[in-house]
Amino acid sequence: MTHHSPSTRSPSTSLSQTETLSLSALTFASLSVLFNIFYLQTDGEPLIASLSLSVLAFCATYSMIRWLGSTFIKAGLKGKDMSKIQKREIPECMGAICAVVYLFVMLVFIPFPFYKDIVAATSGGGNKDIVFNEGEDVGDAVGRGRLLHRFPISKLASYLSATISLSVITLLGIGDDLFDIRWRHKFFIPAFASIPLLVVYFVDFGVTSIVVPIPLQPYLGELIDVGGFYYVYMASVAIFSPNSINILAGINGIEVAQSIVIAVLLAVNDCLYLLTPSYPHPATDSHLFSLYFLLPFLGVSFALLWHNWYPAKVFVGDTYCYFAGMVFVVVSILGHFSKTLILLLVPQIFNFVYSAPQLFGLVPCPRHRLPRFNARTGLLEPSVTAWTEDKQPKAVIGWGLKVLDKLKLLRVTVDEETGRFVETSNFTILNLWLVWRGPMREDRLAIEIVGTQIVLGLFGLFVRHGLALLIFKEDNWSITWR
Amino acid sequence: MTHHSPSTRSPSTSLSQTETLSLSALTFASLSVLFNIFYLQTDGEPLIASLSLSVLAFCATYSMIRWLGSTFIKAGLKGKDMSKIQKREIPECMGAICAVVYLFVMLVFIPFPFYKDIVAATSGGGNKDIVFNEGEDVGDAVGRGRLLHRFPISKLASYLSATISLSVITLLGIGDDLFDIRWRHKFFIPAFASIPLLVVYFVDFGVTSIVVPIPLQPYLGELIDVGGFYYVYMASVAIFSPNSINILAGINGIEVAQSIVIAVLLAVNDCLYLLTPSYPHPATDSHLFSLYFLLPFLGVSFALLWHNWYPAKVFVGDTYCYFAGMVFVVVSILGHFSKTLILLLVPQIFNFVYSAPQLFGLVPCPRHRLPRFNARTGLLEPSVTAWTEDKQPKAVIGWGLKVLDKLKLLRVTVDEETGRFVETSNFTILNLWLVWRGPMREDRLAIEIVGTQIVLGLFGLFVRHGLALLIFKEDNWSITWR
Repeated sequence: MTHHSPSTRSPSTSLSQTETLSLSALTFASLSVLFNIFYLQTDGEPLIASLSLSVLAFCATYSMIRWLGSTFIKAGLKGKDMSKIQKREIPECMGAICAVVYLFVMLVFIPFPFYKDIVAATSGGGNKDIVFNEGEDVGDAVGRGRLLHRFPISKLASYLSATISLSVITLLGIGDDLFDIRWRHKFFIPAFASIPLLVVYFVDFGVTSIVVPIPLQPYLGELIDVGGFYYVYMASVAIFSPNSINILAGINGIEVAQSIVIAVLLAVNDCLYLLTPSYPHPATDSHLFSLYFLLPFLGVSFALLWHNWYPAKVFVGDTYCYFAGMVFVVVSILGHFSKTLILLLVPQIFNFVYSAPQLFGLVPCPRHRLPRFNARTGLLEPSVTAWTEDKQPKAVIGWGLKVLDKLKLLRVTVDEETGRFVETSNFTILNLWLVWRGPMREDRLAIEIVGTQIVLGLFGLFVRHGLALLIFKEDNWSITWR
Repeated sequence: MTHHSPSTRSPSTSLSQTETLSLSALTFASLSVLFNIFYLQTDGEPLIASLSLSVLAFCATYSMIRWLGSTFIKAGLKGKDMSKIQKREIPECMGAICAVVYLFVMLVFIPFPFYKDIVAATSGGGNKDIVFNEGEDVGDAVGRGRLLHRFPISKLASYLSATISLSVITLLGIGDDLFDIRWRHKFFIPAFASIPLLVVYFVDFGVTSIVVPIPLQPYLGELIDVGGFYYVYMASVAIFSPNSINILAGINGIEVAQSIVIAVLLAVNDCLYLLTPSYPHPATDSHLFSLYFLLPFLGVSFALLWHNWYPAKVFVGDTYCYFAGMVFVVVSILGHFSKTLILLLVPQIFNFVYSAPQLFGLVPCPRHRLPRFNARTGLLEPSVTAWTEDKQPKAVIGWGLKVLDKLKLLRVTVDEETGRFVETSNFTILNLWLVWRGPMREDRLAIEIVGTQIVLGLFGLFVRHGLALLIFKEDNWSITWR
């Protein structure tokens, strides 16, 4: 989406005095807390360290987005905002900054949850036999409350594999933004990025048994080992999540806002486990792990939203969408709550299914399907695909289009005299919303879509925790070792 | 180093029939071997799997460099070869392809050395208590010979941290190639990339004791814990290695060829440990680990050299130099043979020290210091920095320049009448070689420099293994647990 023509006005690349002061204060406060935790060994460490690092991540991302904007434009990473009267060129692919800051934070964070006191003997060279000393530090912390719990070092491989998946998707996402990869190729980018996650899962963990719903247990037993299919399932989730976020896009702020909503809802779900009455819940570790990945993600995302919200000063790029989707994949796969993720992706799933006729070529698909900007009113209207006289839909497709029109799931314009199709609105949730609610301003559309997503997500969590007990004994996937 | 002007002739982007046949045969053979190892559980697995994957990496890199050339050029990743009569534009930053292929191979490789049979009990949720079953498979393999040895799963974190360091340096390297980062900033790129390595070293390993040379042992003891300084030392090696390769650059093939020489010498060193009479050596694991990282590196590098050797069809980019340097860093730090790496970097160290006057601004430093191409003769000559009448060196610098001239370490041209400096050759090993040996063709220069490097490297290894016993009891850094 980069257009090569000289920019008319270059955006501001420095921070205002207020911004500098606020960011410096936040940075100083976070650093103090971190110093305190690391050197003075105060209590409650890892979660507070994660929070502080997330605030630092916010500050770093906020400043770097501002500072590097013109550098990105110079390197050709720029795009024109088509839904504005003045079509200024603004930096594209700013999600890359988020991803890089995020990765650093996740790496620097490692000593907080994983630090261990070891008493060990060496067998020389590079070999080692480790004797864990689970005494003092860790034991005390566990005694005082589970929030203080530190992970066993054996969980580090999972943590690192997640980080590798996220760096790989960042690398490939940047490649996509640079080279404008074809749709049918880019669809598989997340599949490649899930390799590290799945390989380490295979080597380090290897559980492929799933709990059978109670009604089916008389026939299948309590647990069933689905073997290789479990990897196919995980890979499918990994492919779907990033792509579904990438196609619910096209208006200012929508990519980041929807990702923030999903992240917050996942974090709320994590907190439900950490604060449950039957505490400590067996899945506490998984949900703590999940929070450690979600908090810094929220940090970098809020900094990006600040600049990407209407009227956008930067674009996020496919990099951000892939990256965000992959964050959800790694926490939900490693935390074994991929069903919950699917529940929170309902709007994205709807958008994907609804888009299918265009994605799979049943209906012609223009290069961009974002809503059409009406310069006279300043509002967005549904964008359309035109049907020419010699290019009419096949009979069955035409019938389908008319049914969708009846169901108010599409706006179809038919020539009343000839009965020929003139145009149909494009198959995205954004256009559909505009069909339902009429033309509206870009930010209003983003707010309404995200609002709907919040309502659906909260309802999903309620269903998950309220109704799951009807079909499963416990309210999360139990894990057993084969 | 990208110049934006229309390309006159586009390079070939497809494989010839011979190439397709050879690469397909190689690919098929490697895949058969891998299939055999993975499914039929034959012997001698990990090292042979690593070799097969390296061959696959060669094929993949070779094809992708050819296929993606025009895509890179379209995205603005291109440069002009200044040392040719026809200054064609060719793709730049092709090292990114090497790095991405390499990372995938390293991830896909994980199940081969780390696959384990576990008998384990779960304590629910995400917790786990693992009981290793070191019996059957692993035990047998160890019994039959150490080459078959598989790593304990606890070594996986080191392996993954190395992979993360390599993905981070790839990300930052691509950033450098895209944005043309200033010299004083890019110098620290490897420092950032070494964070994952050092953090995981800190959390998972944490050894900071070094063996004291025998003459000093009466005063300091056998071992000395240097604490934080060990991390400073490791970070310094991590910063130096990639940068030193990045500044010994500028003629076709030199970046890749020097990296291949270092990798081969490190691999020879590894083999010395694996084939030693006092076998199994305590450091066997470290050197096997090192081979697993070096073999695929050689695979991707040979494919790149094929296209980058004189006359180059592609440029490698800073990405490749950083990436190559970082591969050496991760194997030598995790394998505890960083001193050996330093020994093999002698030409690079010389080039860096020799470059210092220009790098640190004592002598003016032009944007590019590569040798000057004489279009009339078709040969390379030393490039020079001119001294104008009003810009003469300060007295002490002028004295230094004259001393270097006397020592034949510089070519200085002085105006005989006025005694003023007219020009001095640029401070790089390539220019110095041309001062010594006279003008020569580009490939000849690359061969002579790389030849010198091979001789020095072999001598270094001889010194390392022959003389080290005089000052250390064992011929490698022993590891103990604090």
